[in-house]
Amino acid sequence: MSKDIAGLSWDLIQDARARIQGRVLRTPVMTSHTLDAEAGSNLFFKCENFQNIGAFKARGATNAVFALSDAEANKGVATHSSGNHGAALARAARLRDIPAYIVMPNNAPKAKLASVSRHGGKIILCEPTQAAREKSVEQVITETGATLVHPYDDYLVMAGQGTSAVELLEDVPDLDIILAPIGGGGLISGVATAAKTIKPTIRVIGVEPAGADDAIRSFRKGTIEPVPNPQTIADGLKATVGRKTFPIIQRYVDDIVTVSEDAIVAAMRHIWEVMKIIVEPSGAVAYAGSKLVPTKGQKIGVVLTGGNLDLDKLPWLSAS
Amino acid sequence: MSKDIAGLSWDLIQDARARIQGRVLRTPVMTSHTLDAEAGSNLFFKCENFQNIGAFKARGATNAVFALSDAEANKGVATHSSGNHGAALARAARLRDIPAYIVMPNNAPKAKLASVSRHGGKIILCEPTQAAREKSVEQVITETGATLVHPYDDYLVMAGQGTSAVELLEDVPDLDIILAPIGGGGLISGVATAAKTIKPTIRVIGVEPAGADDAIRSFRKGTIEPVPNPQTIADGLKATVGRKTFPIIQRYVDDIVTVSEDAIVAAMRHIWEVMKIIVEPSGAVAYAGSKLVPTKGQKIGVVLTGGNLDLDKLPWLSAS
Repeated sequence: MSKDIAGLSWDLIQDARARIQGRVLRTPVMTSHTLDAEAGSNLFFKCENFQNIGAFKARGATNAVFALSDAEANKGVATHSSGNHGAALARAARLRDIPAYIVMPNNAPKAKLASVSRHGGKIILCEPTQAAREKSVEQVITETGATLVHPYDDYLVMAGQGTSAVELLEDVPDLDIILAPIGGGGLISGVATAAKTIKPTIRVIGVEPAGADDAIRSFRKGTIEPVPNPQTIADGLKATVGRKTFPIIQRYVDDIVTVSEDAIVAAMRHIWEVMKIIVEPSGAVAYAGSKLVPTKGQKIGVVLTGGNLDLDKLPWLSAS
Repeated sequence: MSKDIAGLSWDLIQDARARIQGRVLRTPVMTSHTLDAEAGSNLFFKCENFQNIGAFKARGATNAVFALSDAEANKGVATHSSGNHGAALARAARLRDIPAYIVMPNNAPKAKLASVSRHGGKIILCEPTQAAREKSVEQVITETGATLVHPYDDYLVMAGQGTSAVELLEDVPDLDIILAPIGGGGLISGVATAAKTIKPTIRVIGVEPAGADDAIRSFRKGTIEPVPNPQTIADGLKATVGRKTFPIIQRYVDDIVTVSEDAIVAAMRHIWEVMKIIVEPSGAVAYAGSKLVPTKGQKIGVVLTGGNLDLDKLPWLSAS
């Protein structure tokens, strides 16, 4: 375990910071008097919905791509994420002018295919099963020599995601708590490692959908416990915590809370209405979780992770 | 005419700036690589959708309320706007701890009634006709001695709205063009007066919905030409240019362009999708107009005026 934790060091996060500077955005921190008054605390929202490709995933993918040697990089990178990581990896690869092979299921939504394609990714379609995805990625790696960039279970990716917390704590050094969502655990591993290094007394709380609660189950049991068929509108948070991320979560995350589907949708809509910014369901999960944590009078960092969704299908419109 | 123009001076705008500081937000200027690449120019969006009450109207109303003498203020303020100005005036009055009487038609949407009420406005319902509204306002003024704060045909209101351009030009001094929507003309009068004072070579372009094109008709004809029954989704822009605003528009606005309903909806959706921020239909009109103006290689300021709308009724969802 200690070896895995050591794999994500403060040095690696500082290296990531230097490496991605100028290649991804430094996102703003937004506040809202209305939401503060409701919460009885001061909320600081790290707006990764404004990040390149519309999600924090740009940080980790860019760090991983630019950490490669020229010899490695020239063979390209590969992954099998159909979500924000796929677009982020495609964008990072194009910035370095190398190929990105993105394996996607043949039933992926057109919008996601279009996003990867728009960022220059080479799409490889496969059957929509986990086995077919993994086989396709293996095949493309064998054929091309491309480097796999895992969506979360990769120390360079985690280090990249952690830079969001570095920036947040530069802007608001006296935060008491940081809330971040947990899918596979890449974001919170980086955030927790960075935050606990910068301010050891800070509390880091993970939030996950009740319908994809592998992280809290694993956290309580002490071993990774996958949820076989996760069901949640927060499609970015269905993944199971990884072999590399889980030990970091065990060590640095203070607590995990779960939120209902209704709470996710209500949080998302409230952010739209009050803050006038667009977050996707996964992006609103940390704010939904803030209501379950005692925060009165404290300064709370909330990572709004992304803003990509189909505007024709809003969850509060039953007809859609 | 010169007297009317003289009524809105640079001094009045500078006074407004000092008066509203700390009472309304200094809104951010946002940019987008994607929108810049599409336009072939550099677009700088003044985000008044993030302003207090969700629209630039907070500026003018706050300036008018805080310019009153104590004797005047104690009797309160009144208006008959059911839109953003009503909420803005209610909020400004509460900041000064004086009453705000907001006359609203008895068929006003619940969301608008709720917004005015939430900001502490005293709502007076009337029949939904222009005559009934005016009579109700006269009556409340007679009874209370309140001061009328017109939504746009008022120099203090115009001066307040003009502070948005002062801030924009502080952030981006070398703008070539500023685009702002025209309803009654309060915003563009303030913006044009400020911008032409700060940078005389700047071009100020007004944009209005083709279905409420009184400003361009009046601009071409040289006299105010109301459109009897304006039809547009941009409900904040149905008003006719005013006796006081029109001479300022004639003097300082370089050109006016009109945009179709489809162009307004497309612009609004594109801002949501690319910038991940929420603008109301009226708020997207200036951006829609930017596509009709030669802007290649130039620096363009675009005022995104507001972000208040019913999230259950999005214009691109035909079912709603």
